[in-house]
Amino acid sequence: MHKNVLFAQSGGPTAVINASCYGIIKQAKKSGGRIFAARYGVEGILKDNIIEMTDIDDATLEILRYSPSSAFGSCRHKLKEEEFESVLKIFDKYGIGYFFYIGGNDSMTTADRLSKYALKVGYDIKAIGIPKTIDNDLPCTDFCPGYGSAAKYVATSVKEMALDSDVYDKGIITIVEIMGRDSGFLTAASALAKDEVVDSPHLIYLPEVPFDENEFLKDVERAYSKKKKVFITASEGLKNKDGEYAYLRERSADAFSNLQMGGVGKYLENLVKTNIEKRVKSVELSILQRCAAHIASAQDNDVAVMVGTDGVKYAMEGLTDVMVSIVRTENGFKTSTVPFSEVAGKIKVFPKEWIDNENRGVTREAIDYMLPLVQGEAKVPYEKGLPRYVRFI
Amino acid sequence: MHKNVLFAQSGGPTAVINASCYGIIKQAKKSGGRIFAARYGVEGILKDNIIEMTDIDDATLEILRYSPSSAFGSCRHKLKEEEFESVLKIFDKYGIGYFFYIGGNDSMTTADRLSKYALKVGYDIKAIGIPKTIDNDLPCTDFCPGYGSAAKYVATSVKEMALDSDVYDKGIITIVEIMGRDSGFLTAASALAKDEVVDSPHLIYLPEVPFDENEFLKDVERAYSKKKKVFITASEGLKNKDGEYAYLRERSADAFSNLQMGGVGKYLENLVKTNIEKRVKSVELSILQRCAAHIASAQDNDVAVMVGTDGVKYAMEGLTDVMVSIVRTENGFKTSTVPFSEVAGKIKVFPKEWIDNENRGVTREAIDYMLPLVQGEAKVPYEKGLPRYVRFI
Repeated sequence: MHKNVLFAQSGGPTAVINASCYGIIKQAKKSGGRIFAARYGVEGILKDNIIEMTDIDDATLEILRYSPSSAFGSCRHKLKEEEFESVLKIFDKYGIGYFFYIGGNDSMTTADRLSKYALKVGYDIKAIGIPKTIDNDLPCTDFCPGYGSAAKYVATSVKEMALDSDVYDKGIITIVEIMGRDSGFLTAASALAKDEVVDSPHLIYLPEVPFDENEFLKDVERAYSKKKKVFITASEGLKNKDGEYAYLRERSADAFSNLQMGGVGKYLENLVKTNIEKRVKSVELSILQRCAAHIASAQDNDVAVMVGTDGVKYAMEGLTDVMVSIVRTENGFKTSTVPFSEVAGKIKVFPKEWIDNENRGVTREAIDYMLPLVQGEAKVPYEKGLPRYVRFI
Repeated sequence: MHKNVLFAQSGGPTAVINASCYGIIKQAKKSGGRIFAARYGVEGILKDNIIEMTDIDDATLEILRYSPSSAFGSCRHKLKEEEFESVLKIFDKYGIGYFFYIGGNDSMTTADRLSKYALKVGYDIKAIGIPKTIDNDLPCTDFCPGYGSAAKYVATSVKEMALDSDVYDKGIITIVEIMGRDSGFLTAASALAKDEVVDSPHLIYLPEVPFDENEFLKDVERAYSKKKKVFITASEGLKNKDGEYAYLRERSADAFSNLQMGGVGKYLENLVKTNIEKRVKSVELSILQRCAAHIASAQDNDVAVMVGTDGVKYAMEGLTDVMVSIVRTENGFKTSTVPFSEVAGKIKVFPKEWIDNENRGVTREAIDYMLPLVQGEAKVPYEKGLPRYVRFI
C-alpha cells in the first residue's frame, strides 16, 4: 500500500483551519511517510499543484498553527465523475495512501465520492474528513473548529461596537450583519457580548426564525421607546415565511441593476430609517469574522489541532470514509468519528429550544453551549507590532 | 483658588481615550483635591451631569485604562457664548480649579474659548487640552493617542483580509474603506500590512490626492493584468479635483432617495464591477477601527496615559491654555505643550513628501514614522474568554 500523506483545504477560510494542518503534519511526521499538501483543494490535485511539507521546520510550523485563512489555498470545486481517475493518478504519482480533506459538508461529499470510486477501482486509500466551518453547521459533531474563533470575534466586536455606539446623549439604533446563510450559530454568539456593563445586543434575528418586516418594526419601536440606544444583530441569511431572502425584494426595487444594496444590514437600516428613526447605522462584519486570527479562541485552536492529529491516528489505524467529530467531555473535548454518509451534504441549524420565547434572543443553555468555545486567546506571534503569518500559495 | 479637578471627553471615541482618563485620575489623586468627570463632555457640564472619581478603586481603574470608547460619554457640542456662565457656575459648585478636555481640534477650540471667558470674568482656572483622535490630524504633536491603536487595527485587519481574499485560484479585487475625511494617516497605515508574506495593499488612495475615476480604473486595470488578486485601500474622504466628495455623484444617481449607497467602498466597487471585473468586493471597517481595544497598541496606550498624567502635572505647575503635545525622542516619546491657539480648529494632513511618486502608496519614511506607534499589544483584561470593559454612563 502507498504510505504517503496528502491533505487539502476546501470551502471558506477560518481563523484556525491551518491549525488542523499543523496537527496533521506533526502527527504524520511520526509515521515515516512523506507529507504532501495540494494547493487550492481538489483543483490543485487535478492540476498537480502539490507541495511537499515533510521537512517543514518547527518555527514555520508554529506560525502556520496561528495563521488565518487557508494557507494552502482553497476551492469550491465539485469533482466530476470523469475527474476521479485523474485524481487517483496524482495520488499514485505521489504514493498517497492517506488523504485528509479539511472542509464543510460539501467537502465531505467530495471525499466520500472519491473514496468510493477508489474502492471500486481497487486503489487502497484511507480518506478522512477534518471538520471546518465558521457557521458551525456540520451535524454529528459538538462543534466545528473555526466556529469558536469566529464566535469570539463576533462577541468581542459586538461588545466594543456597543460601547462605541453608546457615547452620545442621543438616541441611535445600530444594526450588525453577521455571517450565516442557514444556520444562526454565529449570529447567536453575539449574545455572549452581554455582561454587567454591556447589555447589548437587545434584539437578535436568526435565519431559523421566519423574518417579518412588521414584527421587526414593532420589536424595534418597542425597544426604542424603552431605551434610547438599541443594538441589533441579524444573520445575513434572514428569510421570510416563504423561504425567500428577506432583502431580495429591496434589491429588485433598485432601478440601477449595477447599483446593488448591501445585504441584510443595509436592508434593515433602510426599514428603520424610513419608519422609526433617522439616526441608524449598519455594520457588516464581512470577511473579518472568519479570518481575525489575532483574536482567535485558544480552545478552538487546540481542538482544530486535535482533529488534525487524531485524523492521522485514525487513518493509520485503518479507518476510512469517516469525518473526525468532536465530543464534549466534563473537562474539555475529545474526538470520535462519524461515517461520511451521515454528514455529507447535511446541515445543522440552531436548535429551536435555544431560541427564547419571543424569538429575539437565545436561552441560557445556548450561552452555556457557546461559552466554552471562546475560551482563551490563541498565542499569535507578533513581529514589529503586527501578527506574523505564513502561507504556501 | 479652587482645588478640584474636572475632566471630560469630546468627539469620536478611540481605543485609548480612557487611558488618558486613567492618567489624569492617577496623577490627580496625588494632589489631594477631589476628582470629577463630566458625562457627555461639555453637555454634561451644562446639565450638571457630574460624577466623582476620587475614590475609584485600583482594579476598576486598571480596567478603565484598557476600555475602548468614551467611558464617560462624549458630545460634539459647540459651546455658545451665553452658556459660558452656566459652565463656570458648575465649576464653582464643584470647586473646580483644573479642567482637562480630551478631544481633537474642535475640543481645543471649546477649551480655548472657555478659558478666555473665565479669565475675563476673573474665574481662576487652569485649562489643559489632552489630544485624542484616530485620524492623527492634530498639528504640533508627533502623533495623537488613538491613532496608533487604530493604525494597528487597520494594518492587522488588512493583513488578515488580504490573506483571506487570496485563497481561491481565481481573480478578485478587494476594496477596503478606511476612516479619514481630510487626513490620510489612517488609510496610509494599511501599508504596514505588507511583509515578506503579504504584498497587499497594492493601491492606496489618500484624501490628500485628488481622486480621478479614469486614473483609478487605469491603475486597477494595470494591477489586475499583472496579478490576479488586487487589494485596494481607500480613504472615506476621497475628493475630486474640485474638492467634492468623489462618491456623492454616485449617490445622487440613485432615484430612491432613501436607498442610499454606502460610501467610498461601494462606489469604487461599483466602478470596478461596471468596467473591469465582476468578482469585486468592498469592506468597510466602520466603527471597529476606532474601538477595537482588543488589538490596541501598547505604545499608544502608554502615551495616552502619559498625556493625561503630564497634563495634570503641567496644570499643577500653573500652566493653562495649552494642549499637551507629544515629542518623539531617540528612545520613545515625551510630552511638551503647545498653546491652544496653535491647534484650535487646525488640521494636519498626510505630508506630500510621504506619498510615493505614483500617488498610490507611501514612502519608507512614512512607514518609519508609523511603525513605532503600533508597537506592543495592550494588556486587555479577559474574563470568560472575552474582554472585560467598564464605563460610567
